[in-house]
Amino acid sequence: MKIDGKAMRTIWLEADGASVGIIDQTQLPHRFVTLILTTLTDAAHAIKSMQVRGAPLIGATAAYGVWLAMQADASDDSLARAYETLHATRPTAINLKWALDEMTAVLRERPQDERAAAALQRAGEIAEEDVGINQAIGRHGSVLIEAIAATKSKGERVNVLTHCNAGWLAAVDWGTALAPIYTAHEKGIALHVYADETRPRNQGASLTAWELGRHGVPHTVIPDNTGGHLMQHGMVDLVIVGTDRVTAQGDVCNKIGTYLKALAAADNNVPFYVALPSPTIDFTVIDGVREIPIEQRGPEEVAVMTGKAADGSIVSVQVVPDGSPVANYAFDVTPARLITGLITERGVLTASRDALAKAFPERAKSAI
Amino acid sequence: MKIDGKAMRTIWLEADGASVGIIDQTQLPHRFVTLILTTLTDAAHAIKSMQVRGAPLIGATAAYGVWLAMQADASDDSLARAYETLHATRPTAINLKWALDEMTAVLRERPQDERAAAALQRAGEIAEEDVGINQAIGRHGSVLIEAIAATKSKGERVNVLTHCNAGWLAAVDWGTALAPIYTAHEKGIALHVYADETRPRNQGASLTAWELGRHGVPHTVIPDNTGGHLMQHGMVDLVIVGTDRVTAQGDVCNKIGTYLKALAAADNNVPFYVALPSPTIDFTVIDGVREIPIEQRGPEEVAVMTGKAADGSIVSVQVVPDGSPVANYAFDVTPARLITGLITERGVLTASRDALAKAFPERAKSAI
Repeated sequence: MKIDGKAMRTIWLEADGASVGIIDQTQLPHRFVTLILTTLTDAAHAIKSMQVRGAPLIGATAAYGVWLAMQADASDDSLARAYETLHATRPTAINLKWALDEMTAVLRERPQDERAAAALQRAGEIAEEDVGINQAIGRHGSVLIEAIAATKSKGERVNVLTHCNAGWLAAVDWGTALAPIYTAHEKGIALHVYADETRPRNQGASLTAWELGRHGVPHTVIPDNTGGHLMQHGMVDLVIVGTDRVTAQGDVCNKIGTYLKALAAADNNVPFYVALPSPTIDFTVIDGVREIPIEQRGPEEVAVMTGKAADGSIVSVQVVPDGSPVANYAFDVTPARLITGLITERGVLTASRDALAKAFPERAKSAI
Repeated sequence: MKIDGKAMRTIWLEADGASVGIIDQTQLPHRFVTLILTTLTDAAHAIKSMQVRGAPLIGATAAYGVWLAMQADASDDSLARAYETLHATRPTAINLKWALDEMTAVLRERPQDERAAAALQRAGEIAEEDVGINQAIGRHGSVLIEAIAATKSKGERVNVLTHCNAGWLAAVDWGTALAPIYTAHEKGIALHVYADETRPRNQGASLTAWELGRHGVPHTVIPDNTGGHLMQHGMVDLVIVGTDRVTAQGDVCNKIGTYLKALAAADNNVPFYVALPSPTIDFTVIDGVREIPIEQRGPEEVAVMTGKAADGSIVSVQVVPDGSPVANYAFDVTPARLITGLITERGVLTASRDALAKAFPERAKSAI
């Protein structure tokens, strides 16, 4: 997508042909900083410190990280070390392991002098595959937005609500939940996005708002508490969110608070869509609420907020009283019954076991 | 209630018999500062700058403000000026106007040399009436908590979720939503409170957590996004919130986000109670969602957060990107169908037109 008119991705091959560029997302939204990764250590640090985040981008960064390792040392030991080092950065990230397995499969049987070139080739393919999947999600999802636009009077915009950041910053390009929005925007459909702030980590306020703003998509940041009121008053036409994991029956695990928006959408007959690349579907899990353990993260994410002070410096401030305990559940599960549709690279599906198994038979079968 | 063992109220007569003490709530939770109000100007500033907030406390402060004005000048002009000055501080606060009307009614027909004493008398009564109402709410509401406690195994606590601050800091003492909690706590019932952070103004994180902590009530601060997940997993036994306005049919206008928690409670069969003093009932409004205009406040409340920096100083930081618009709706309306009961000073009522009119016939009738 674009940053103030200039097309960019979240990860790219540098002109020297030997290193990788990324956006340091920990500096957003107040500073736009790019970094060059030249070693395995750089790549591992970028993932671990969340300079890059979002499942697809983590996968692509890990793939390029293996390439950086192969440039320095293409031995089996080096390959094993790269796998372990990168996997340890975010051990629960499903795309990370997938990308590392892909790279290992391509490199393991090759002679050492071919490994760097093969790694670069496969890492590039992994990045392109993500872009292709997200473009397909954008195509299918934008049809939903177009259909609503067709019912609007002249001058009226389609209002989309989203939660957290499932935009191009979380992927290589386009994003998942935001791909239909960017695609509709490119088609010239008048739309406006309500971006949930997304406490505690504020990905909506700091990343979604930033990327929409830089690309030129009209948007408004709202506290997470606001969506219900907007839906009661007909101010939201549809909700599109991303997801970290979809179960075989279509339950959706996503950023904490997604479930509350799905309830409000159902209570007000607002369509609630989830956009996802098919690797996100976990056919081994059925009932998301019962089966998916929800990660608890550190209390400082709730207790401390970081932003730009009056003098332009980036400052962290404590927003709870000394001594008050804090709970920080990272995700919740939205039951399939609350979901209008799943926007995948193979089309828009109902959130049901049958529809998922039919659309992705090769994956559903292998999970049995 | 208590601050680290010492009983306090939010407003009190100072020992000099001529001035009023308050807690400067703008400094909470990081600094505990008390202030002495000696003039009408002091009282008006305290309300306007939100050193005192919460409908009952605003009313009591305004009443004492009239007394301060009468000490300096007990003329009719002075009384009229005090009314206007105080009313202009928060023109939409219903208790403010009520308290000023009460004071005027008591003072208008009296000789000037009796007005100061009469004003002090009536201001004290207004404060005591608030305490009495809240104690009654606490008595009725604590029975609900006791009933749940009776179903618990030994060592298990009753988990209550609350939103925003409807505690003693918003009243003269006890509070509304927190009165049942304090009362149950005094009775020795083991309980624990989940305090919603309550974006954008963070009254839960900064005020509810502070007052519960200082009084010694176990609690945990959670992002507003978290309550749905907790309810899905049986971690909340009941919800109790306060309200700014209840309609004749039992719809509840309260801090933005309340509606989302009510939806989650209904979806998970968690009882959802609203605690209110009867002056909060507005028998002239029926359908809250359609009829109550929702105040939009300044964007800086969403865009800027204030907290304690590492060096102990209080700092404000911007948490949205430059140029991103922000919407800040202050309240939402929870339809009566989602409410298990209204905890009033006359008992726990169903949220319905019949129940409200029957419990408060004198008020229901006068509104027709």
